Amino acid sequence: MKVMVGVSNRHVHLCEEDYKLLFGNIELTKKNDLNQPGQYACNETVTIKGEKSEISNVRVLGPLREYTQVEVSKTDSYKLGVNPPVRTSGDLDGAGKITIIGPVGSITRNVCIIADRHIHVDDEIIKQHHLENITKVSVRINTEKGGIIDNVYIKKTPKAYFEMHLDTDDANAFLLKQNDEVEIIL
Amino acid sequence: MKVMVGVSNRHVHLCEEDYKLLFGNIELTKKNDLNQPGQYACNETVTIKGEKSEISNVRVLGPLREYTQVEVSKTDSYKLGVNPPVRTSGDLDGAGKITIIGPVGSITRNVCIIADRHIHVDDEIIKQHHLENITKVSVRINTEKGGIIDNVYIKKTPKAYFEMHLDTDDANAFLLKQNDEVEIIL
Repeated sequence: MKVMVGVSNRHVHLCEEDYKLLFGNIELTKKNDLNQPGQYACNETVTIKGEKSEISNVRVLGPLREYTQVEVSKTDSYKLGVNPPVRTSGDLDGAGKITIIGPVGSITRNVCIIADRHIHVDDEIIKQHHLENITKVSVRINTEKGGIIDNVYIKKTPKAYFEMHLDTDDANAFLLKQNDEVEIIL
Repeated sequence: MKVMVGVSNRHVHLCEEDYKLLFGNIELTKKNDLNQPGQYACNETVTIKGEKSEISNVRVLGPLREYTQVEVSKTDSYKLGVNPPVRTSGDLDGAGKITIIGPVGSITRNVCIIADRHIHVDDEIIKQHHLENITKVSVRINTEKGGIIDNVYIKKTPKAYFEMHLDTDDANAFLLKQNDEVEIIL
């Protein structure tokens, strides 16, 4: 079964309280919609800073969430000097310590993770592709630097766009770009 | 069959003529030996520059070779703004255009590649591991972001240290570090 690739560059999710500490009382503004229904990239960016260095122009994704979370690649983590675990979005158990710097303030939180590989589905997609009771798959990639990636989690949300999210390390290692097609192995 | 991982960060090989253009008549100096017999990291570094940006402190590897070659990851290539093909070291067919800046001069050459995944072997290793007539293998990686990488070339040299060279994109995507063990699939 084929699925399209969505490449996730480093980005930040913010809760309302942290957003106000970083940006003051101005509103989050939409730059463009993402494929996942209701999710969007904001015009707002922050700088993220670890023990070794910082990376600027890191996009904030909207809408605001219940939790603050910084998603980076392993490559980013070496550059920054942070030690993020691989986690499903929203699971901040053991997350790395990172400082987020906005235009009006900065915060330091244990919220830095490497997002796991995952495929977005909803009830309709599950039914259509017979993914009932499947929590994890492998995916075949047919490029010049191809292969198979394991531990790709099936992530169910109320309304989803069917795509596999990879971080930039996975995408670049396999020479994959946004909207490339890959093959789910059931 | 198990093999150890050697992670290749971006680096530069130089021919004598280009070395002199970049460094003048001073000698290449050894920083430390690499695992492959006779190969070493030099104290000398250069800046590499593409259409978009540059990366400094890029290590020169010794000894000097018959050809100049810049090896980068796909991640590096996006940052630099170069378009390197995946190639075996020494094959510069279609290589990307890049500028190399040294302390006394700079050169612009079509020498930028992404090195293919490869395993170093010599006659003794081939015999010991029954790799006769095998040119390409797949390799299983058992990490939290594990899987299988294809198109790993068996690279024969007169005297080799048995290890698999991966670029930083492959290593970081799979959470691999120098000297980690992976499994060759024959």
